[in-house]
Amino acid sequence: MEEQSIRVEESRSRKEKPNSDELIFGRHFTDHMFVMDYTEGLGWHNASIVPYQNLSISPAAMVFHYGQSVFEGLKAFRGQNGDIQLFRPKKNVQRLNRSNERLVIPPIDEDFGLEAIKRLVEMDKDWVPDAEGTSLYIRPFIISNEPYLGVAPSHHFKFVIILSPVGSYYKEGIDPVKIAVENKYVRAVKGGTGEAKTGGNYASALKAQEIVEKEGYSQVLWLDGVEKKYIEEVGSMNVFFKINGEVVTPVLNGSILSGITRDSVIQLLKHWDVPVSERRISMEEVYEAHQNGTLEEAFGSGTAAVISPIGELYWEGHHLTINNGKTGEISKKVYDTITGIQYGKIEDSFNWLVKVGKKTEVKQKSLKKSITSLS
Amino acid sequence: MEEQSIRVEESRSRKEKPNSDELIFGRHFTDHMFVMDYTEGLGWHNASIVPYQNLSISPAAMVFHYGQSVFEGLKAFRGQNGDIQLFRPKKNVQRLNRSNERLVIPPIDEDFGLEAIKRLVEMDKDWVPDAEGTSLYIRPFIISNEPYLGVAPSHHFKFVIILSPVGSYYKEGIDPVKIAVENKYVRAVKGGTGEAKTGGNYASALKAQEIVEKEGYSQVLWLDGVEKKYIEEVGSMNVFFKINGEVVTPVLNGSILSGITRDSVIQLLKHWDVPVSERRISMEEVYEAHQNGTLEEAFGSGTAAVISPIGELYWEGHHLTINNGKTGEISKKVYDTITGIQYGKIEDSFNWLVKVGKKTEVKQKSLKKSITSLS
Ligand SMILES: Cc1ncc(COP(=O)(O)O)c(C=O)c1O
Ligand SMILES: Cc1ncc(COP(=O)(O)O)c(C=O)c1O
Repeated sequence: MEEQSIRVEESRSRKEKPNSDELIFGRHFTDHMFVMDYTEGLGWHNASIVPYQNLSISPAAMVFHYGQSVFEGLKAFRGQNGDIQLFRPKKNVQRLNRSNERLVIPPIDEDFGLEAIKRLVEMDKDWVPDAEGTSLYIRPFIISNEPYLGVAPSHHFKFVIILSPVGSYYKEGIDPVKIAVENKYVRAVKGGTGEAKTGGNYASALKAQEIVEKEGYSQVLWLDGVEKKYIEEVGSMNVFFKINGEVVTPVLNGSILSGITRDSVIQLLKHWDVPVSERRISMEEVYEAHQNGTLEEAFGSGTAAVISPIGELYWEGHHLTINNGKTGEISKKVYDTITGIQYGKIEDSFNWLVKVGKKTEVKQKSLKKSITSLS
Repeated sequence: MEEQSIRVEESRSRKEKPNSDELIFGRHFTDHMFVMDYTEGLGWHNASIVPYQNLSISPAAMVFHYGQSVFEGLKAFRGQNGDIQLFRPKKNVQRLNRSNERLVIPPIDEDFGLEAIKRLVEMDKDWVPDAEGTSLYIRPFIISNEPYLGVAPSHHFKFVIILSPVGSYYKEGIDPVKIAVENKYVRAVKGGTGEAKTGGNYASALKAQEIVEKEGYSQVLWLDGVEKKYIEEVGSMNVFFKINGEVVTPVLNGSILSGITRDSVIQLLKHWDVPVSERRISMEEVYEAHQNGTLEEAFGSGTAAVISPIGELYWEGHHLTINNGKTGEISKKVYDTITGIQYGKIEDSFNWLVKVGKKTEVKQKSLKKSITSLS
C-alpha cells in the first residue's frame, strides 16, 4: 500500500468555472476525481486520478440496497499569499477510518488517503476560488459495490474523491439561523451509527428537516433518541451554548459526530481561557438559562458553515430568541479566528494547515495577525 | 401516470441460466431490468424494460452520500401447473410507498408499479426456476440521483427492478438456525427509520451481524433501542414465539418492519384458531418461558426464508435450546402452508396469488390440497 502510486489520466477538456461570487454549495464539480478499488484478498488497488465522470455500477451493488457507505467533508482554501492549504485533513482521514470500522468497510492507509487528497487538489488547483468565504470542498467517500442481494458486508468497494468549489453553506452566511428542536423524529441512538459519517444518518434526518423548513427554520436540533431530553447536534453541525460565561457542548456520547470544527473551537476557547465544558446538556437547561437571562450565545460548528450563530431556537411552543437574534461575541471571534487561519490571515499556531503542492516556503509571518492578538 | 406505457428494449443476447439446484441467494441476475426516472415537475417518466446493465450515475449522486433510498423484496414462483405467480405483490408496492413517505421520496402509482413487476417477470419468465424451494426474487428499489452535496431531499430519482433466481436464503434451509440476542448495537429506534425498508437500517446492522457470525450464529435478534429489553426482529425477518400454546410476535411499534410474511402467518394462525397475539414481549419473558418449559417454538418469518425455525437463542451468557433444536409443529405447518400456496399445491383461499402473463385459466383445484386439510 505504501508503495502504491497514483495513475493519472488528464482530462482532455476543461469545464467552465463558475464565478467565485456566484457559488452555491455542492452544485459544481471540478475536472478530475480520484478513484481506488477494493477487492477482498487484493486490498485497495488501482488508485487513479481520472477525468470527472459518471460511475458505472451494477444495479445489484450493495450500496443501493443496504447503504454500506461512508464519507468525509473537508476544504481547501486559497491563502492570501496564493498558497493552497487544507484544514486539519489528517483528522478527516482518521475519522473516515473510524466510520469504516463501524460500517464494516476495510480501512484505508491514512497517509496514502491524505496524499490522494493533496494530489487531486493540486491537479485541480485552479478550481480553488478566491472570493471571500469561498473554498474548494473535498468529498472523499466509499461505497460498497459488490453485486449481491444478501444482507452481508460487501467484498468490493470503491473509494472516490470529488471536489466542489463552494460559497457559504447557509444562505444566511454568518448571519444567525433559526433552528427547531425535534421532538418526534430521531437521528441516532447509542449503539447505532450516529458517530459514523454514513448515509443512513442523513437519510433518516430528511423528513424532520423537510417539515421544519416549511415553517421557516433552516435546521433541526436533535435530541437523544432514548429520553428525547438531551441535546445532540444539528443536521450537519455540532452545537455550542454560552451559558453564564461558560461555553458548553454535548459530550461525545457515541451517537453524535466528533466534529473537527468542534475540536478546533474547544482548543481555541481553552487557549483563550474561556471556560468550556463537554457534558450532557438538556433542552430544559437551555430553556431555563434563556428564561433567567443567562443563555448568552448559541452556535453550530461544522466544515461547511464553519460557525453558524443560532438566533432563534424553537422548542415545544417556545420561541427562544438568543442574543437578540444577533451574532454573539464568542461566535464571531471563533469564526474570525478559524477562517483567519484558513485563509492565512492569522498565524497558524496550532499547525492546522497542510499545504498542497511543492511550495514549502517559509510562512509569510509579517502578513499575519497573531492568533492571540484577536483575544 | 395511469396512461404511461412501458417501452421495451429486448436484450440481444441471453445469459446462461444457473442450474436450479445450484442456486445461491442473490448472486445471479436475469436478462432484463425495469427502469423509470423521476424529475421534480415532470413526475415519474421514461418507464422502460431494458437489457440488464450497469447504471451510469454521477459520483455526486445523493444516494452515495446521504443514503436516500428504499427497496422491496418479493418472489415469483413456478406453480406446479406451470403458472408463474407472485405472492401478495400489492402489499410490497404499498409498503414501498410507505418507505418513500418516510424517506421523502415521491410515491409511485401502485397499480403501475405492480404492472411493471408483472411485465418484467413475464419478459424473463424462463428464469423462474422450478426446483423445490427455488423462486425468482424480485428487487424493486429507488435511489436518489441528483448530483448535489447539500443535505436535502433529492429532486431526481431512479426506480429500478431487478430479478434474481434464488434457492434458500439460509444454508440451513428450513433447518433451525442459531440466533444471538444483541445487547450492544441497536438497529432502530422509534422516530427513526426502522419501519421503512431503507439501506441505512441494514448498513447499521452489519457490524453486529459480523460479530455473531464469527461465533457461529446466523443472525442477530434485535432488542428495542431505548431499554434494550423488548424484542424487535431478526436481521431480515420478523419473529414469533410459541409460549404455553399461544403464539406471540412483537407488535408493530414504529421501529420494526411490517412483514408481509408476518401478516400471512398471523392470518393463517387465526384461520386455524391458534391463539396469536401481537404485543410487547421482553427477552426476560422469553427466558423465563424457556426456564419453566413453556417456550415451545420460535421462528422467523420473511420473504427470503419464508419460515426459519430458531433452534437456539443466545442471550447474556445463556444458551436457550428451543424444541430440542428441532423444527416445531407450528413452524412446519405454517411453512408448508405458505410454500404450498406459493407453489400452487394448496388452494389459495386467501387470494394471495397474482398470476403473471395472459394465462388466466381456472385454477386446477383437483391438484390441490385444501388449506384446512393440513390442520
Ligand atoms: C452530523 C454532523 N455533525 C457535525 C458535523 C461537523 O463536523 P466537522 O466539524 O468535522 O465538519 C457534521 C459535518 O461534517 C455532520 O455531518
Ligand atoms: C428488517 C426486516 N424485517 C422483516 C422482514 C420480513 O418482511 P417480509 O415478510 O415482508 O419479507 C424483512 C424482509 O423483508 C426485513 O428486511
